[in-house]
Amino acid sequence: MKQVNYPKREEWNDLFLRPVQEQEELGNTIRQVFRTIAQDGDAGVLKYTQQYDYPEAKVISTVSLADAGNKLSDELKNAIQLAQNNISKFHSTQIEHPIKLDTMPGVTCWRESRPIDRIGIYIPGGSAPLFSTVLMLAIPAQLAGCRDVILCTPPDRNGNIDPAILYAAYITGVSKVFAIGGAQAIAAMAIGTSTISRVDKIFGPGNQYVTAAKTYAQQLGIAIDMPAGPSEVLIIADKHANPAFVAADLLSQAEHGADSQAILLSDSKDTIDNVLSELSIQLSLLPRKAIAQQALQNSRAILLSNLDECIDFSNGYAPEHLIIATENAEELADKVNNAGSVFIGKYSCESAGDYASGTNHTLPTNGYARNYSGVSVDSFLKKITFQRITAEGIFNIGPAIETLAAAEGLIAHKEAVTIRLNALNNIKK
Amino acid sequence: MKQVNYPKREEWNDLFLRPVQEQEELGNTIRQVFRTIAQDGDAGVLKYTQQYDYPEAKVISTVSLADAGNKLSDELKNAIQLAQNNISKFHSTQIEHPIKLDTMPGVTCWRESRPIDRIGIYIPGGSAPLFSTVLMLAIPAQLAGCRDVILCTPPDRNGNIDPAILYAAYITGVSKVFAIGGAQAIAAMAIGTSTISRVDKIFGPGNQYVTAAKTYAQQLGIAIDMPAGPSEVLIIADKHANPAFVAADLLSQAEHGADSQAILLSDSKDTIDNVLSELSIQLSLLPRKAIAQQALQNSRAILLSNLDECIDFSNGYAPEHLIIATENAEELADKVNNAGSVFIGKYSCESAGDYASGTNHTLPTNGYARNYSGVSVDSFLKKITFQRITAEGIFNIGPAIETLAAAEGLIAHKEAVTIRLNALNNIKK
Repeated sequence: MKQVNYPKREEWNDLFLRPVQEQEELGNTIRQVFRTIAQDGDAGVLKYTQQYDYPEAKVISTVSLADAGNKLSDELKNAIQLAQNNISKFHSTQIEHPIKLDTMPGVTCWRESRPIDRIGIYIPGGSAPLFSTVLMLAIPAQLAGCRDVILCTPPDRNGNIDPAILYAAYITGVSKVFAIGGAQAIAAMAIGTSTISRVDKIFGPGNQYVTAAKTYAQQLGIAIDMPAGPSEVLIIADKHANPAFVAADLLSQAEHGADSQAILLSDSKDTIDNVLSELSIQLSLLPRKAIAQQALQNSRAILLSNLDECIDFSNGYAPEHLIIATENAEELADKVNNAGSVFIGKYSCESAGDYASGTNHTLPTNGYARNYSGVSVDSFLKKITFQRITAEGIFNIGPAIETLAAAEGLIAHKEAVTIRLNALNNIKK
Repeated sequence: MKQVNYPKREEWNDLFLRPVQEQEELGNTIRQVFRTIAQDGDAGVLKYTQQYDYPEAKVISTVSLADAGNKLSDELKNAIQLAQNNISKFHSTQIEHPIKLDTMPGVTCWRESRPIDRIGIYIPGGSAPLFSTVLMLAIPAQLAGCRDVILCTPPDRNGNIDPAILYAAYITGVSKVFAIGGAQAIAAMAIGTSTISRVDKIFGPGNQYVTAAKTYAQQLGIAIDMPAGPSEVLIIADKHANPAFVAADLLSQAEHGADSQAILLSDSKDTIDNVLSELSIQLSLLPRKAIAQQALQNSRAILLSNLDECIDFSNGYAPEHLIIATENAEELADKVNNAGSVFIGKYSCESAGDYASGTNHTLPTNGYARNYSGVSVDSFLKKITFQRITAEGIFNIGPAIETLAAAEGLIAHKEAVTIRLNALNNIKK
């Protein structure tokens, strides 16, 4: 980790920068994939699947979910169920109940939620079978009442999908799992094929091709969860923090990927020194040491004058995960403006939120915490406004509407009120 | 209006299509504007303003708001204030209060809202001074507690801005109004110049250049309100509907622009006939008759077998505005899945929601009501999750996290828990 001591405020903007992401020109590749899927449907998907994932693939078919649990240990199934319970409980608090309000007598307005009909979830393949992400996306979809939730994930070279992914899909009501991956899976969900039905919104992480394909899918009227970038954590630690805990949290971020970033802020030089020495001890023991080491090259330990300055810095950086490991952690948490998810106090490790405490782990990265929220039940809903105006209501509000519409020069808008007021006045006479 | 009688369900998809929007290749133009603003700042903005809006423009300066009210009639000011009251009341019901939940003993999770810091509002110039849109965007921004709300709107050929726009900005806490428009205004808000500070999220309608610039701004990390398209209404009317009211509502949509669309659905041939004859009478009296006439060429009156089929069609079309002018309007409203805003019963005209009833008029168009909500207080907030885990909590949840992280092969995630459990066990000993 690079150490920076007492940077001036005018130098902060440079410290807010994330590792530069390679901006390869993927546009042509992605357009070609979408063209192929639009023209060839399932055959196009199959061609890419044979090329990139499972050479022996014969058809695009759904994967049976029912017996996935048989391949898991009871310990793992119990842990998944504990996580499912906590995630369900927490996300249930996000369900909104309509409040009907008379803004004037006879003018009643309210808002109701309706599920987005068809959801597509993408789960990447690769070294880690991210069944936890299945829970984080399918549980709120289920709570929202989405009619159909499908999942795409690439098969390995033998055509298999990790049974934990299938089990998580099974217990969270996913209707179908397709063993397909990459940009072709995103294109299939965005366009639809004979086997795969078109969805309304696509969720889930992925590599640069998947991310570019999700962005492209937006041009076809598909919504996506949020802009994607590498994962990151910012930890604020004071002299009361446990250096070994802080080092472990930095490493659990760093092992995600070489492009991950971990930032340590402290008002204590000793704390930084102690964390860094713990870090090198713990790093040496990790199986994903090589990845974590690369990520730590993008990472910084920054000494600042006081904890308020640490919070100011954190709000400027807008971290995906913010851990506050200080004595007055609650008080500092009140001052957080920009963050995806906040972990308060020394026992609140990021792993808890990543897996099982109940909060969602699909969070805004790359500074998007300034203007985006993480995934929640809201992400699977539309909120529709309703109004009901009575005869009394239109008498109360009508004249103001006539004035406003006329001032905007929209006379048909005015007339829609006038014709109703005239009709009511004629009845009265 | 084109009439369609009893279309088969397999023909509905064609009837869901919106008027084709000219997909001019604006990419190069927009990139050039952004490059110019990035390089030349205020001078670049000024150059475009002189070219497209106000040839005599000398500097980019803020417009004084304080005396805007002096130029408005009391009648208009009172109408604006009535609208402001209703919009504020309704949007206040959207403010969420945190619910702290123990998902397990010692594991407390909750969600809190924080305002998006810096908001940019764009208000188009042209024939209609859309001060109502100022209210619809600045009021929820104010309720959300956004730190800074700026507004850009193009000056007319004499350098002036409609005083109603300035007055609406003044009473809703907009900090600065800049007399600039078009893609250059969006670029200035997305990049920042000496005069105009960079914003986090951009809201508001505009022509195809503004829309393309907003889309492009997303690549710079700026959020936008929603994808934009021409305005539209769908009206479901049964034999009890008042044909003159329905015709007036269709026309108030049609006068928006030549690319607007109005759809009438009914289970009664007589109702359709009566509405269409009322339509031609009312149309002839409108000042914006030429625009409305063009829009009606894109519009359709569709006869269906019954009202449930009308609701099915409407859910497939996913209208921005849905007016239900039937005897059982409330009952049908319960079956609405996809719509921006719903108007129930014969006195609930779209104009009410456009101006003054309290609901927002910035709504998803072009079928986006399938997967997007209209603007609300939520649009100006991030929702941040928080968690606080005690020693008891980590004992309760820790073993499950260890199991889950190990199953995903993320050992540093597991170790972040193990190190805490070990420390606690050592204390116990």
